[in-house]
Amino acid sequence: MTSRYQSSLEMHRIHTGKMETVSKVPLENSVDLSLAYSPGVADPCLEIAKNPYAVYDYTIKGNLVAVITDGTAVLGLGDIGPEAALPVMEGKAMLLKRYANIDSFPICLGTKDVDIIVQTIKAISPTFGGINLEDISAPRCFEIEKRLREECDIPVFHDDQHGTAIVVGAGLLNALKVVNKSMETVKIVINGAGAAGIAIVKHLKNIGFEQIVICDSKGIIYKGRPNGMNATKDEIAEITNPNDLTGSLQIAMTDADIFIGVSAANLLTKELIDCMSIDPIVFALANPDPEIAPALAKAYGVRIIATGRSDYPNQVNNVLAFPGIFRGALDVRATEINESMKLAATYAIASLINESELRDDYIVPDPFDERVVKAVTQAVSKAAIESGVSALMCAVH
Amino acid sequence: MTSRYQSSLEMHRIHTGKMETVSKVPLENSVDLSLAYSPGVADPCLEIAKNPYAVYDYTIKGNLVAVITDGTAVLGLGDIGPEAALPVMEGKAMLLKRYANIDSFPICLGTKDVDIIVQTIKAISPTFGGINLEDISAPRCFEIEKRLREECDIPVFHDDQHGTAIVVGAGLLNALKVVNKSMETVKIVINGAGAAGIAIVKHLKNIGFEQIVICDSKGIIYKGRPNGMNATKDEIAEITNPNDLTGSLQIAMTDADIFIGVSAANLLTKELIDCMSIDPIVFALANPDPEIAPALAKAYGVRIIATGRSDYPNQVNNVLAFPGIFRGALDVRATEINESMKLAATYAIASLINESELRDDYIVPDPFDERVVKAVTQAVSKAAIESGVSALMCAVH
Repeated sequence: MTSRYQSSLEMHRIHTGKMETVSKVPLENSVDLSLAYSPGVADPCLEIAKNPYAVYDYTIKGNLVAVITDGTAVLGLGDIGPEAALPVMEGKAMLLKRYANIDSFPICLGTKDVDIIVQTIKAISPTFGGINLEDISAPRCFEIEKRLREECDIPVFHDDQHGTAIVVGAGLLNALKVVNKSMETVKIVINGAGAAGIAIVKHLKNIGFEQIVICDSKGIIYKGRPNGMNATKDEIAEITNPNDLTGSLQIAMTDADIFIGVSAANLLTKELIDCMSIDPIVFALANPDPEIAPALAKAYGVRIIATGRSDYPNQVNNVLAFPGIFRGALDVRATEINESMKLAATYAIASLINESELRDDYIVPDPFDERVVKAVTQAVSKAAIESGVSALMCAVH
Repeated sequence: MTSRYQSSLEMHRIHTGKMETVSKVPLENSVDLSLAYSPGVADPCLEIAKNPYAVYDYTIKGNLVAVITDGTAVLGLGDIGPEAALPVMEGKAMLLKRYANIDSFPICLGTKDVDIIVQTIKAISPTFGGINLEDISAPRCFEIEKRLREECDIPVFHDDQHGTAIVVGAGLLNALKVVNKSMETVKIVINGAGAAGIAIVKHLKNIGFEQIVICDSKGIIYKGRPNGMNATKDEIAEITNPNDLTGSLQIAMTDADIFIGVSAANLLTKELIDCMSIDPIVFALANPDPEIAPALAKAYGVRIIATGRSDYPNQVNNVLAFPGIFRGALDVRATEINESMKLAATYAIASLINESELRDDYIVPDPFDERVVKAVTQAVSKAAIESGVSALMCAVH
């Protein structure tokens, strides 16, 4: 029997990678060449030189997203470097094409210097309609995204943060309907204060969840904690932990309604689950091995269990979010992906499952549900227009 | 009747640019996704993390060339900026695919700062098997290429310089056979000291041409000329102008056998041609309008006339060189494109026309001659191996 390991290596090796670049125009004779290249190519060049917006009419820019990493936080594998990250970035690029018909280039950066990364991405940005940051380690990812959003005139989106947060938000909204609890009163514990954990906190606060405690390897994050803090954790301490808890994850878990793990395999024990409130909801999102196996969670009394894996129900998969988010942003030439667009994506994903269909094991749509990308695209485009970040509404034509 | 202007704009607009990215692997179900993306993609990532050379086995890197510009010297249009340069870079990328089956990404840089350009290209280089610099103004292009060749472990090739020089070299070798003159004794005048002019001088010297005079807008370049010099012109003054001529282009043209224009439209007058030796050879390469129209050149006594245009005979077209050069370099994983590889490309192009076929109006192969890319590829691969720059010969597998 062929293992997944063998199948994956063979698939990557046979094709030498997963993507190719292909011409959309004929290049078979000198007339073709005189239009696609010299001298005819000068005509669109001059049109764009006269009117910069024309770059969206005559080039690939408007449908092109760069998937960029520095290879420092690849999957659960850590800092494996830019070359070793390339298979992931190619895969991500092809998911954008598969799900949203977006052309995409993977770019792996041979530097970990935040200033150089920002400068590099800004320098190459004229080519692209959007930038998807991927697998960049925290807390560097926060500064890189923040500075790029300030300096670039195209959307910059760190999917490990926001894609995850959006799908988690959608799943939680639906899970609460199943267990009949309310966003204002449920107690949420998030374990893991990296890119995903921090973004989930901020997004859930924006959705309207109020009681959130976040833990890292040193336990509960609280204002003034003396060890293991950084600027991002200081900021997050201000908006979480309303009861000023201190101590271990176990203290945080007491009476918690929801546990969200973006941390490490198998750390969710029976003892921790026993601390939780009635009808516990667990999002065990560590990859590839979740914080607890779904069967075990069920045996310990968890009511709703979600993971990042395709072989269990309730897969929290970013592919539910990022293709439609970029499609929606590109379609209206959004200059950024703002909070209202992220919220719109969240509600769009959640609302695809109506209340009569909701079940313990069906709180998020299937990754192959073709309605998802359309719904997210429409919601994101609408939110971009309504929040005033659609450049299409003021473009000169 | 539809003008070329209308046809070109329409072709670019209908397709919204000329290229797309396409998956080489199926992405139709969760098994496909589990191999191409998480969790299976971790397997090639780990293989590459263990053995960096494996990036050539499992990713697109080994067949991927970046076509990079800063938009400062686009075609004959000058400094039109990165967005307006994108149609040219897309076209170039698609020529690499069409002629040599090389995947290619266009990258247009939003900076003219030499240090930032070098740093940016170095930072993105882990993604690529080679870098094609394009349409970067002189003398900045010389420093950028020199520094990148020193700092990158993949081939970096400025096509406006070397591609042009290689095809000019091939054409001249054949032209001399037609007129029965020798490389050691012919007098060559080059007009234009930009990227192409400087590179042509160096390459012709490497081929074995001895008597070269180069002119710019200030006239003949000579050692110690007080005006309009720079580091590159100082360097070129050392290896040209053996008789220490000074003064105007007309003085340089006296008894010249060969005129090579990489300068401006229509500057080659009857008076200048009348100064030349018997059987004048003229390469009028200004684009889109040559230094002299071929019919006029013939009327004034020019024996062999070549231009950059597809609608006249003897088209000096870089597409004869760069696809095979990159194909040959990638095939043996060359770490650079060195002089011996460029010379090999020159001889390979020239030798495709045997002496019985050579005519005044047939000194370079047709751009659609399918033998060209194969011949150049083989010659360049062989030269890379023999000159010790093929990493394939020492790769760990």
